[in-house]
Amino acid sequence: MTSDAIIPAERLEQFIADAFEAVDVPAADAKTVAHLMTAIGLRGLDGHGVFRLPSTIQRIKAGGINLKPNITVARETPSTALIDGDNAIGHLAVNKAVQVAMDKAEQNGVAWVGTNNNNHAGAASIYAMMPLKRDMIGIYMAVGSANHLPPWGGIDMLLSTNPIACAIPGLEEPPIVLDMATTVASYGKVKMAADRGEAMPEGWMVDKEGKPLTDAARSNEGFLVPIGGYKGYGLALIIGLLAGTLNGAAMGKNVVDFNADMKSLTNTGQLIIAVDIKAFAEVEVLKRNVDTVIRAMQGSATLPGVEDIAVPGQRSHEKFERYSRDGIPVVAPLMAKLDALAAELSIDSLA
Amino acid sequence: MTSDAIIPAERLEQFIADAFEAVDVPAADAKTVAHLMTAIGLRGLDGHGVFRLPSTIQRIKAGGINLKPNITVARETPSTALIDGDNAIGHLAVNKAVQVAMDKAEQNGVAWVGTNNNNHAGAASIYAMMPLKRDMIGIYMAVGSANHLPPWGGIDMLLSTNPIACAIPGLEEPPIVLDMATTVASYGKVKMAADRGEAMPEGWMVDKEGKPLTDAARSNEGFLVPIGGYKGYGLALIIGLLAGTLNGAAMGKNVVDFNADMKSLTNTGQLIIAVDIKAFAEVEVLKRNVDTVIRAMQGSATLPGVEDIAVPGQRSHEKFERYSRDGIPVVAPLMAKLDALAAELSIDSLA
Repeated sequence: MTSDAIIPAERLEQFIADAFEAVDVPAADAKTVAHLMTAIGLRGLDGHGVFRLPSTIQRIKAGGINLKPNITVARETPSTALIDGDNAIGHLAVNKAVQVAMDKAEQNGVAWVGTNNNNHAGAASIYAMMPLKRDMIGIYMAVGSANHLPPWGGIDMLLSTNPIACAIPGLEEPPIVLDMATTVASYGKVKMAADRGEAMPEGWMVDKEGKPLTDAARSNEGFLVPIGGYKGYGLALIIGLLAGTLNGAAMGKNVVDFNADMKSLTNTGQLIIAVDIKAFAEVEVLKRNVDTVIRAMQGSATLPGVEDIAVPGQRSHEKFERYSRDGIPVVAPLMAKLDALAAELSIDSLA
Repeated sequence: MTSDAIIPAERLEQFIADAFEAVDVPAADAKTVAHLMTAIGLRGLDGHGVFRLPSTIQRIKAGGINLKPNITVARETPSTALIDGDNAIGHLAVNKAVQVAMDKAEQNGVAWVGTNNNNHAGAASIYAMMPLKRDMIGIYMAVGSANHLPPWGGIDMLLSTNPIACAIPGLEEPPIVLDMATTVASYGKVKMAADRGEAMPEGWMVDKEGKPLTDAARSNEGFLVPIGGYKGYGLALIIGLLAGTLNGAAMGKNVVDFNADMKSLTNTGQLIIAVDIKAFAEVEVLKRNVDTVIRAMQGSATLPGVEDIAVPGQRSHEKFERYSRDGIPVVAPLMAKLDALAAELSIDSLA
């Protein structure tokens, strides 16, 4: 029986790279995607890291991903670009988009770079954080890869939980990193509750009558609830238009459910904005002022029962420090899947 | 006894301009602000239009606003600018910021322009919509002018309901215009409930024990609830950092409550982003694709009891068409205040 494991980051990264190389992903690309999937795991964003490796390999084997993509700049102006992902593994085209955005922001203060013809790229915050190392603020949005959200008042699932992430650096404090879906709970959380046979709290999902749905096993009879009701619906819609429609990528009815369909072109769209801090302030002054805001939030008196107050990204940063030192936890059911994958691909197993 | 009235837009605009001129605002500036406040009223955004005229006049009389501001570009790069509002009436500096943003976006595809040393500028969507006439997408964020929101888990009111707006054009359909605060209810809605002696629904506010607060008369004993709990807190924080801290404007502890303090420099910050559609797509193609998304949302089957489904901005657009034709409704209590203001300033009364 497989049990929970703690895997050093370097070992996890090598395992992911081995898996991709085993299905003919070029070594350099395999390494890039493995590095990003591991970075996701290091921040404890469990639903988007190695958890997605088996399904990505499955999609590659089904012929749903282009292994020799020609990722190009399809349009550009001094501060914008549209990156054609050529149906690559999603991480590769977004990684390229962020590099282009940072270079343009360096020249012009800000850059806005979109992608199309791309695939799911993992956790939003990984990309929003990339500009930090060049003293830039990063904002990332994406069209989610399956629709589980109807317009407010409706029952047709026309929207995904389109995420937004934003990273802003502190000086002595770790960066503020927001990474959120526009629904109260992600569909991944619903699936995890179903796997464990647990009930969902009221507020996560409603059924077709608009009544709370708490039986996770019946999740296919209902839909996710957007944050703040019509406000979260509005945010999901806007994010979808900016990251999808503007780029000529899928949005609304033409979003392909990447869990249900392993072969069709998903035409996934993403958006990265990089803002060069020095266009607005002395970098050290801005970072110090961010520290002041962080410490003010953390210093607030608390509600009864609340031990301490966090800023967005703080818990993930704590995990990053712990997992970098001690290794990344991988739960038993995922270990079993990764062992099966290793056997299937004839590569060394993870643990 | 004053009663509800319906005021033609031109009359309302003239009244507002007269009021500002009566307290020595230069005629051109008075006209600009009057036009923007009226545009807000035409979209039915009642809490931010002429409703704010008496308090703005009061602030001017208290010496809290600079009537001869030198609104300047304090920093700039090809695609960014920082506008120093010189403590002007807030609308003037944001109006300038949007013009600068559109000109830079025309040249470089996108522009990001911030303000500092500014004041409250009214409804977010008015500014987000300005780029539409140049076939651009507009995004606007602002630091709110009073703190009613603690960090998630806390009880110190360190954040405002920092709003975000975004406008995206359709071809045959009116534009999608999202305009939302990051709390479930705005503080204005709370005050309106208190004025009417009505209870608030659960979910708008909580007290210092974290329990639902529904008595609007006791609103000063509690605080607003962010949308999606910690997610709305994260959004309010990020918006405040981007529109405030990055620009060297007030954010967190140093936000001045503009209802309680009529004289101190508020150092309000705002942010406008303009995106030139033609940098990403043929303009007509994009607009047609937005129409397709709008119609898909509107065409969804509905929950029991829901008559029709709207996209963000649709209800405001319907009001705009009706109010442009028939006049703008002004409720009796506000008419009474405006009559008193007219008498105080020796200008013609509104009705």
